Parts: sequence; structure tokens; C-alpha cells
Amino acid sequence: MTDLRIADIRVTPIAFYDPPLLNNAGCHQPFALRSVIEVETEDGVIGLGESYGTEDVLAGLAAMAPSCRGLAVTDLNGLWARTATALPEAPTRLRLRVGGAVEVAMWDALGKATGQRVVDLLGGQVRASVPFSAYLFYKFAGHANEAPDDWGEVLSPEQLVEEARSMVDAYGFKAIKLKAGVLEPLAEIAGLEALRDAFPDAPLRIDPNGGWHVHTVLDLLPRLEGLVEYLEDPTKGIDGNAVIQAATDVPLATNMYVVEPSHLPPNMKHDAFRVILSDHHYWGGLKASRDLAEICRIWGLGLSMHSNSHLGISLAAMTHLAAATPNLTYDCDTHQPWQTDEVIEGGKLPIVNGAVAVPDGPGLGVTLDRAELKRLNGNFEALEYRTRDDATEMRKHWPDWQYGRPKF
Amino acid sequence: MTDLRIADIRVTPIAFYDPPLLNNAGCHQPFALRSVIEVETEDGVIGLGESYGTEDVLAGLAAMAPSCRGLAVTDLNGLWARTATALPEAPTRLRLRVGGAVEVAMWDALGKATGQRVVDLLGGQVRASVPFSAYLFYKFAGHANEAPDDWGEVLSPEQLVEEARSMVDAYGFKAIKLKAGVLEPLAEIAGLEALRDAFPDAPLRIDPNGGWHVHTVLDLLPRLEGLVEYLEDPTKGIDGNAVIQAATDVPLATNMYVVEPSHLPPNMKHDAFRVILSDHHYWGGLKASRDLAEICRIWGLGLSMHSNSHLGISLAAMTHLAAATPNLTYDCDTHQPWQTDEVIEGGKLPIVNGAVAVPDGPGLGVTLDRAELKRLNGNFEALEYRTRDDATEMRKHWPDWQYGRPKF
Repeated sequence: MTDLRIADIRVTPIAFYDPPLLNNAGCHQPFALRSVIEVETEDGVIGLGESYGTEDVLAGLAAMAPSCRGLAVTDLNGLWARTATALPEAPTRLRLRVGGAVEVAMWDALGKATGQRVVDLLGGQVRASVPFSAYLFYKFAGHANEAPDDWGEVLSPEQLVEEARSMVDAYGFKAIKLKAGVLEPLAEIAGLEALRDAFPDAPLRIDPNGGWHVHTVLDLLPRLEGLVEYLEDPTKGIDGNAVIQAATDVPLATNMYVVEPSHLPPNMKHDAFRVILSDHHYWGGLKASRDLAEICRIWGLGLSMHSNSHLGISLAAMTHLAAATPNLTYDCDTHQPWQTDEVIEGGKLPIVNGAVAVPDGPGLGVTLDRAELKRLNGNFEALEYRTRDDATEMRKHWPDWQYGRPKF
Repeated sequence: MTDLRIADIRVTPIAFYDPPLLNNAGCHQPFALRSVIEVETEDGVIGLGESYGTEDVLAGLAAMAPSCRGLAVTDLNGLWARTATALPEAPTRLRLRVGGAVEVAMWDALGKATGQRVVDLLGGQVRASVPFSAYLFYKFAGHANEAPDDWGEVLSPEQLVEEARSMVDAYGFKAIKLKAGVLEPLAEIAGLEALRDAFPDAPLRIDPNGGWHVHTVLDLLPRLEGLVEYLEDPTKGIDGNAVIQAATDVPLATNMYVVEPSHLPPNMKHDAFRVILSDHHYWGGLKASRDLAEICRIWGLGLSMHSNSHLGISLAAMTHLAAATPNLTYDCDTHQPWQTDEVIEGGKLPIVNGAVAVPDGPGLGVTLDRAELKRLNGNFEALEYRTRDDATEMRKHWPDWQYGRPKF
């Protein structure tokens, strides 16, 4: 029997290039902050995780990770007990991020040590590959004071259709999601309608990130009904969205207001959201995400998957998890088409016909490209910022821009 | 890497001696019907499960088990897909019993094949041993036309206290549960009050099995409040119990009306029961029971464990599961003190200071006593009945007895 106890945990902060994508909070900065977690067992097996690289998560990992030495990689109860002990003052939100980052690496280590894929450890593969959606953003041509990127400016319906066309041609996505809450709602609906004309059969979604007032959404419902398969976080909070859900049969989806277990009872009570976009990075890892899936099944909610800017370890974990989840009812989100750096050997996992095949091999089926890890860590060290600040970035382009949620 | 695929599943029906214990449905028959499930992998590893041995479950297992050949013992998704295919017409209740019976044996096989205990596979041990309660029954001195057993007749408060004293002395139980719904409610409350006098510090519980009318319970509440730690299934159904829960701060518990996942949403909606007595035999196995525990944690419900007449494989599974469940808020139930037969090597697992230590060794940590399995299977083959019928048995003692739920 191999020794499945944790000998060491290493956390490497990295920064990778991110295009100037727009959302209700502003504009993506030139580099996204991320962390790579390595859980090494007594036998030298290394399990991988990937998570946020912001100051709070890195500080949490620094405080918690050493306390996991000696823990068996199967001991998720022990992980959460140690997380609570190491971060006694931390809000649940942070504990779930920190513990969840290590949890994924524990599953990978268990799989690599015992020759089993994570998808099998999570209950068995129910689909050969996992469908993802085309994740469209309004964007600037390039970052402030930099040359345009290959995608160019996307602020009009015509540019949006062109972006969608490029992405669908390259990856074969079936469903299309528009990140909204950036322009006037009528302009964004016009963009959505242009996408409908260009892609008559594609399931469409729009995500204003809580940026619309309740009355705005109620006014827009006649144009949205029949146009979108779900409406994501149209306004702020469980209460506000419950008002909208009561007014329409279009299911509301969320990755903003039902983001940890304690939000589920009020959501069920108020019937605010009928689709949960799960995310193992903030729900507390793969076990917690599987629990969430079962809760969605029992309560009859739809289920899909949210994405922040990420690299290949995260995509591998999302793919194993989704492939082991029978009730995945909508194609998942991924930022992967926007990604130009990679930290796993072999480069980005291929997206074919809009889907990612479950990586072969034990654990998550991916290994670290240590040269790239070092380079991306160098990016991080050279950066001046340690938190994500989309608002400041936005004002470099639009100096009068004001944050508002809801705004329109 | 070992081959974790299922080569064969064997189901052996057994019957073991059961004392004449009383409940709202009647009297236990002389033999309890049970099944022992053996999941054998391609490498010859044998995982054990134990479940009901009634006609419906045996027929379900006979129809379903052969379809599991070739399945990996980790593939719980595959198990449920095959259960659904093999039993297309079966109600959810039966599917969960049949699939769950095999599921436990799959966990045991996985543990035995990889050198891991089931408690570790379920997320890690959070307690050295699992506390159980003294499970008191009214009973006849002996079965119809048979000599009295060692426990003798228990129908009065004095006899009840004597039964409790014997059980607590022998096993060290801390909490005491009374199976009720048998005598007039005031007689049963008198029994409970006698137990309170004899055991001033013991947490007490009473379980009328849905046998009391709502108005009866409302009348009795002043005597029950402060006397019991929870009130189990006092009346029938989610609606009826919700009326009672709204009238008292004593938490209501259930193993009758929230017994499968689909019952959870209405229970949460109506606030009927605040404690769930889980049971891996009917919730669908160990993974489903762990999911239930997490749901109880999220919704703030209490959690304990129900028991039917069982042998040592079931007790081992209950112990591993409970030891891996952080939010076990009440001592579990077990019929083990009433048990005189056993099917695991080494005899009954010891109960010390009211608790069962997690068995050592891989998997569930127990192995089959094949001589006893054969003997108990002989019992089954010789029996004339194939279903449980407490009512007919009751009328052998009290010919005028009538079933009623609610009755009093």
C-alpha cells in the first residue's frame, strides 16, 4: 500500500496574459492572478490544483497549507477541520476557496497514487466529453497603451457576431453566452438578437452580472423570452431576482448570489434561481460541487458550470467533475478561448466540437510544465498589483466610467 | 493496478431469530428476513453488503445484480443507471433499496482492493467510535406457542425500566429510545416518565411510528416538552407533523416520512421534521447517506441513524458511515442488543460505553462467517413466509388487535 499522507504542499502564484474583456465591474487587467497548488505525498506523488492568485487566497493558503502535512489525501473531513482551525477569522467565502484549492490537488494525488482517474473517483464517467459554450465578451481592441490583440474591438452587434463566428469556427461550440451589463441594455439585447440571426439554432444566454434594475429586466422580458435558454444574474440579490423569476418562465441562472452552501436554503425558499452555475473553485472543491449537483437534482434545479479566467489544471478538474455529473443540464462556461498562456505539459486541452474529452491517465490526467510555471511565476513577481481591480483598468479606457450594480 | 471490475454478484437470503418486539404495525415475527450481498471483482476481492430479505428486494436484486458485471466498483453512476434499466417499473423506494444494497458492497470491495477503510473513502474519520442508543421495545415474553426469551414480557413501566437497566448495564448506552405507538399514549408516556426517574441524565426519545392523532400529540406536548430530546414520527405524514412542529420547540424526527431524496424539498418547505434519521439501506447506500448528511448540515437539520433488525455487516457499514459524518447530532439507533445470530466472523461487534469502534482493516473491516451464512440461509429456506407481516403475528397474541396509523 502506498503512503497517501501529505508530506508537503507548495503554492506558486502566477500571472498570465488576459485580454481586455469587459463586464459590469470594468475591464480585465493585462494579467490574471492565479495559483498552482502541489500536494506531495510521502511517496513523492504530486497532485495538482489551480485557484485564484489574489492576495486573500494566497495569504489563506500560506496560513493553512502547512497544517495539512500528515493528512491522508482521502481525509476531506480533516482538510476542512484544519482549514477552520488555520483561518478562524476568515469568512466562509475565503475558507471555501482556500480549502477547495487544496482539495482538488488531494483528489489528483489520490488518483495518481492509486492509478485511478478523478472522474472515476467522483462516481464514474457518464459522458465521453464535456460540452462548453462560446463565452463572448465586449472588449477593447487592446489593453491601454498597447497594440490591439487578434480579437480586436468588440462593442457593436456586428463585431459581436464576428467574435462569435471566430470562436465557433475554431472550437465548434453549440451554445453561446454573452457577458453583459456593460453597455445600455437595449444595445446588448440588439447584440443578442444579431447573434440569434447569425446562429439560428444556438442556445443563447446573457449575463448582465447583476447590472440591471428589476424594472429594466421586467421591461425587457418580452424580448428575452424565446430568445435565451436562461437569464443569468439579471439583477442583484436573491430577493431582486426572485421578483423576476416570478414574472417569467425563462429560468434564471446564477454564479453570483448562490455561491456557497448557506445560500441554497434561501434560494429554494424564494425560488430566485432555477439554474446554478457551479464552480469548484469557490464551492469548496470537487466533493462540494458533487454535493451541489445532487442538491440541484433533488430540488429540480438546472446545473451548469461557471468559469473565471483559468488555465489547464482548472479545465481538467472542471472536465472530470462535469463528466461524473449526470444532471449537467447546460453546456459549461470556459474562458479557455481567451487564454494564450498554459501551465500544463502539452499545451491547452483541445476543444473539439465544443467539447473537452476527459484527459487520459490517472488523477486529473495533466502534469505541470515547470518551465512555464517558472515563467508565469516571474510574471507574477514582476506585477505591481496583487488584487483584481477591473474598475481602475476600465477608467484607463473610459475615464468617466462609474461602477453600478444595478446600473442600468 | 488491481482490476476493480465486478465479475460476479451473489445474493444469499437469510433469516435470523428476532424477539417478539412490538410496534405500531404489530409484532416482530420469529425470524427477520435479510440478504447478504457479495460483490466479487475480477481479482477475486469480495465486498460485502447486507440489506432487506423480503420478496420485493430479493426479486429486485435478482433482476439487477447480473447487469452490474463489468462495472468498476467505483462507478456509482453506472450502478444507478443499470438499476434504472433493470427495474424500469419499480418505484423509487425499491430502486434505492436494491441499488443501495449493492453500493455498500462496492465500497467494501474498493476498500479491500486498495487497502483503504471505508471510513477513509467516505471522507475521513471524525470520531474514534460511534455512539448508539438503547433501543427499548414493548414485547411479549416469547413468540406465540414458544417459551419466554431472556428479556421476558415488557408491557408495564416497571418492566420497561428493567429492560432499560439490563441494556444499559450490558452496553453502556447513554441515550434511550422507546418504540411506542403500541399501548395507550398515556401508558407509554408513563413508561417514559418512569425511565426519566430511573435514568435522570439520559437523553430520552419516543417513537410512536405515526400512531398518534395530531390532537393527541398536541394534548401530550406539555408532558413531552422537557422530557424528550426529540419526538419521532408522532403522527402521520409531512403535513400532520408540520402542524405539531409548529406548536413546539421539541424537534420532530423521522424515519418514516422523509425516506428518500424527493421528500426533502417538501419537508424543508413545510418545516415538518428537524431531525432526519438516515438509513443507508433505504436512502440508496453510503454515498446517498453522505449527501443526506450534507443537506442536513446546510439546512440546519439534526441527523441521526435509523435501524431495522440487522446483523454485523449492516452495523459495520453504519459505523463507518457515522464515523465519517461530522454532523451526526444524536446517538444512532441499533437493534443489535436484540440480536442473537451473526453472520460475520468473530461474532457481534462489541458495544462498549454505548459505542462501536470503527472496525480495523480494509473496507468495512468485517468478513463473512460462511458456516453461519449457510445456517441462516437454511433458516430462510425453511420459513413459510417471504414478506414481513407484523399484523398477523400480533393477532397470534392479541386476536382483536387492529392496525391503525394514526390509531390513538
